[in-house]
Amino acid sequence: TWRHTFAKIGEDWIFLALLGSIMALLSYIMDYGVSLCNTARMWMYFELTTHLAVRYLIWICLPVFLVLFSAGFVYLIAPQAIGSGIPEMKTILRGVVLKEYLTFRTGIAKIVALTAVLGSGMPLGKEGPLVHIASIVATLMSKLVTSFKGIYENESRNSEMLAAACAVGVSCNFAAPIGGVLFSIEVTSVYFAIRNYWRGFFSAVFGALMFRLLAYWLETEETLTAMFRTDFRVDFPYDPHELFIYALIGAFGGLSGALFVLCHRKYVLFMRKNKRISSFLQKNRFIYPAVVSLFIATLYFPPGLGQFLVSTLTTRQQIMSLFSNFTWMSDDLTTEQSAIVSQWTNEYSNIFVTLGIYMATTFFLTVLASTLPVPSGSLIPIFKIGAAFGRIIGEAMHLWFPEGIRIGSIISPILPGGYAIVGAAAFSAGVTHSISICVVVSEMTGQIQHIIPVLVAVLVSNAISTLLQPSLYDSIIMIKK
Amino acid sequence: TWRHTFAKIGEDWIFLALLGSIMALLSYIMDYGVSLCNTARMWMYFELTTHLAVRYLIWICLPVFLVLFSAGFVYLIAPQAIGSGIPEMKTILRGVVLKEYLTFRTGIAKIVALTAVLGSGMPLGKEGPLVHIASIVATLMSKLVTSFKGIYENESRNSEMLAAACAVGVSCNFAAPIGGVLFSIEVTSVYFAIRNYWRGFFSAVFGALMFRLLAYWLETEETLTAMFRTDFRVDFPYDPHELFIYALIGAFGGLSGALFVLCHRKYVLFMRKNKRISSFLQKNRFIYPAVVSLFIATLYFPPGLGQFLVSTLTTRQQIMSLFSNFTWMSDDLTTEQSAIVSQWTNEYSNIFVTLGIYMATTFFLTVLASTLPVPSGSLIPIFKIGAAFGRIIGEAMHLWFPEGIRIGSIISPILPGGYAIVGAAAFSAGVTHSISICVVVSEMTGQIQHIIPVLVAVLVSNAISTLLQPSLYDSIIMIKK
Repeated sequence: TWRHTFAKIGEDWIFLALLGSIMALLSYIMDYGVSLCNTARMWMYFELTTHLAVRYLIWICLPVFLVLFSAGFVYLIAPQAIGSGIPEMKTILRGVVLKEYLTFRTGIAKIVALTAVLGSGMPLGKEGPLVHIASIVATLMSKLVTSFKGIYENESRNSEMLAAACAVGVSCNFAAPIGGVLFSIEVTSVYFAIRNYWRGFFSAVFGALMFRLLAYWLETEETLTAMFRTDFRVDFPYDPHELFIYALIGAFGGLSGALFVLCHRKYVLFMRKNKRISSFLQKNRFIYPAVVSLFIATLYFPPGLGQFLVSTLTTRQQIMSLFSNFTWMSDDLTTEQSAIVSQWTNEYSNIFVTLGIYMATTFFLTVLASTLPVPSGSLIPIFKIGAAFGRIIGEAMHLWFPEGIRIGSIISPILPGGYAIVGAAAFSAGVTHSISICVVVSEMTGQIQHIIPVLVAVLVSNAISTLLQPSLYDSIIMIKK
Repeated sequence: TWRHTFAKIGEDWIFLALLGSIMALLSYIMDYGVSLCNTARMWMYFELTTHLAVRYLIWICLPVFLVLFSAGFVYLIAPQAIGSGIPEMKTILRGVVLKEYLTFRTGIAKIVALTAVLGSGMPLGKEGPLVHIASIVATLMSKLVTSFKGIYENESRNSEMLAAACAVGVSCNFAAPIGGVLFSIEVTSVYFAIRNYWRGFFSAVFGALMFRLLAYWLETEETLTAMFRTDFRVDFPYDPHELFIYALIGAFGGLSGALFVLCHRKYVLFMRKNKRISSFLQKNRFIYPAVVSLFIATLYFPPGLGQFLVSTLTTRQQIMSLFSNFTWMSDDLTTEQSAIVSQWTNEYSNIFVTLGIYMATTFFLTVLASTLPVPSGSLIPIFKIGAAFGRIIGEAMHLWFPEGIRIGSIISPILPGGYAIVGAAAFSAGVTHSISICVVVSEMTGQIQHIIPVLVAVLVSNAISTLLQPSLYDSIIMIKK
């Protein structure tokens, strides 16, 4: 039996390594597709014409087309690909069988449609769909192995592999091998067997290595060291008195996280209960995605409300600037810094107004966009909303204590970028009810100094949101029941 | 019932917050006692005399006295306080009742004796005893609450609180709230309920805050931002080709970790099976601790073998210099850097020989010291051994590739400090069979850039050591059965 065990373990290793590498490759290709769409759209908008009406048509046509393409593709190929994937995987890992959910067909639909949706610039993310795709890849690979070996099916091994696949999915999304594994355990499991701990890590590491190698081979700049690298170089990154503010940010994150979950569920249930609307939309499947994407794209139109929504920046650029390590309200900014701040101000508003509008609008548009019948996650927009809130508080703190907070002989300067990180983590925790988001944030930013503020805010946020609402994933499970 | 649940949750929070704060306070007081002993010993050694024989007597008398005091104190007050605490807590959390293990008496014995042992400079740590002490504090606090409330005992609540206590114990030891919680879950649990996840974090955060506040109140320099802060400022902290080396360090860590566990168990079983030795030692309880501590202190005597063991530096200084962010073999060192390197060289040897002797001697002395009948952990010395090995490999890599590794247009310089971190994590993982040690290491150093190399080494080390030997904690459980 020892030899048998060894053979099985060896096989598992190869399996997990392959799973991680394939997922990294898929994620890389999808990112490439998304960035192509973004570049094309910005080029068309800025270079083709200066006529406002034509510009508007150009601005809206690609998003509406991509969303419609995505909705149609999913509808024709595999309607199971609609939505996130985390709630469904949680259900499957509890032992429920969802029909046709982990097939090749569904996988193709999800990959293609997700790339199109993300390319459209809707406020959506990809963490849930990547979990779904990774689970599909793992299932297909399992079947391949099984068909080679004749009848050799093992229920518990299957669910171990699916759990590892969920971990890989999240890790690939965040470029955070450790946080991703922990996050996937938290959001998909109820009880967890420690002996399976290593599988997710092993696979996630191979994913991370694959990313790194791809960056070398294709000679691009991006690597998997840190997604939104920050650079806070201080010995005392926070002061005990600031912890009250961090706890307040956590409380706000918990409240607004619960509000997000509530809004999402109420809206979905309202649309479903209203017989006339739902039967009309059932018959005319493309009306709803067309109207919603047109509405969202119109709001994002740069000369209009878009100037408050920084809509000419990519999501990555938005988060990088929210996390940036300088005080936007400072008097002496370098040219580069002024360029960043100028994105967040315009003739009608200062940064506080812009950030406030950005936050509120993104909140409601994310709720709206997440009801589109396409593959979608919502963690990245949630992250943006939280980061904007944190930046507001951080800049306000700077106005209040321009010299920093002095205790005894030590002066702790205010780091608004640190507040942005805390805000992002707190709001994400409020929506997902996860503590491991603080590890995800550390890995994303490549810095772990802010771990105590982040942990304080995340715990407060969790405590409040858990009292008020289920997590977004449990809420979706409730809706689907 | 809602009101009842809320009251219970509220009570839990206060309980966990108090537990964390008390443990931080205890840990702080113990650290203070240990540093007093160290300072006193170094002062007596350096300042009192220059006569070699007298110096030797001064050098050995305090350690031998402290170890004998510790052994005697534990023997008289509570023999249950001997040893680590993690294996016992693992047994208790599985449902076994260990008599008199979580009493006030045992707690006092463990706290006092542990401080004495650590002050003696024996190659021992405190992560296991802190877990034990935290569990005792939690149990005593539980009893206090229960006695207020009449009969209100709850089996499952008790074990939840003990699990949280284990987390706090590890977190206090490493100054690593997240890694500590994960590590404690890994080493004490088999199955883990996700809904209890937050307890450990909550309590650990309060511990961390307490540490921070103590630092303010007492105006000391030390805070809980990072225990062994490193400062690697590079965009590409590692190169894909170096990962093979990291994997090899992991393999070595796994092999030597298994060897450590094997040596420890064989030695304990040998001493026990040999009837004449064991009955002699049983009758003369102080012979063994006296002989062993005298032997170890003699080996550490600075003019003798001690000059290869850097024995005039504290453990913290040793690890800080092993992790230091400069190349020891470099030609142009600053004065400060030369001072650090000069500790690791002498007229008979270069750094490679010193580090090799340091590594091998610490390995065997740690096995020996961990059999003393006193409270003791062995993770910190294991950490030192691993760090020394990593530093050797890192410096050798620098000799091999003095310009760094070039691929295409990018040159990655070799960072020997990074290798030391990887080595420390790999060897610790080999001994404890834990993956979360990589989070612990990130929090300890305050940097997360090296997470992929660390994770690679830790996974390889785990895979190899798991095949060869049980973990140190499971091995101790086997011995005690």
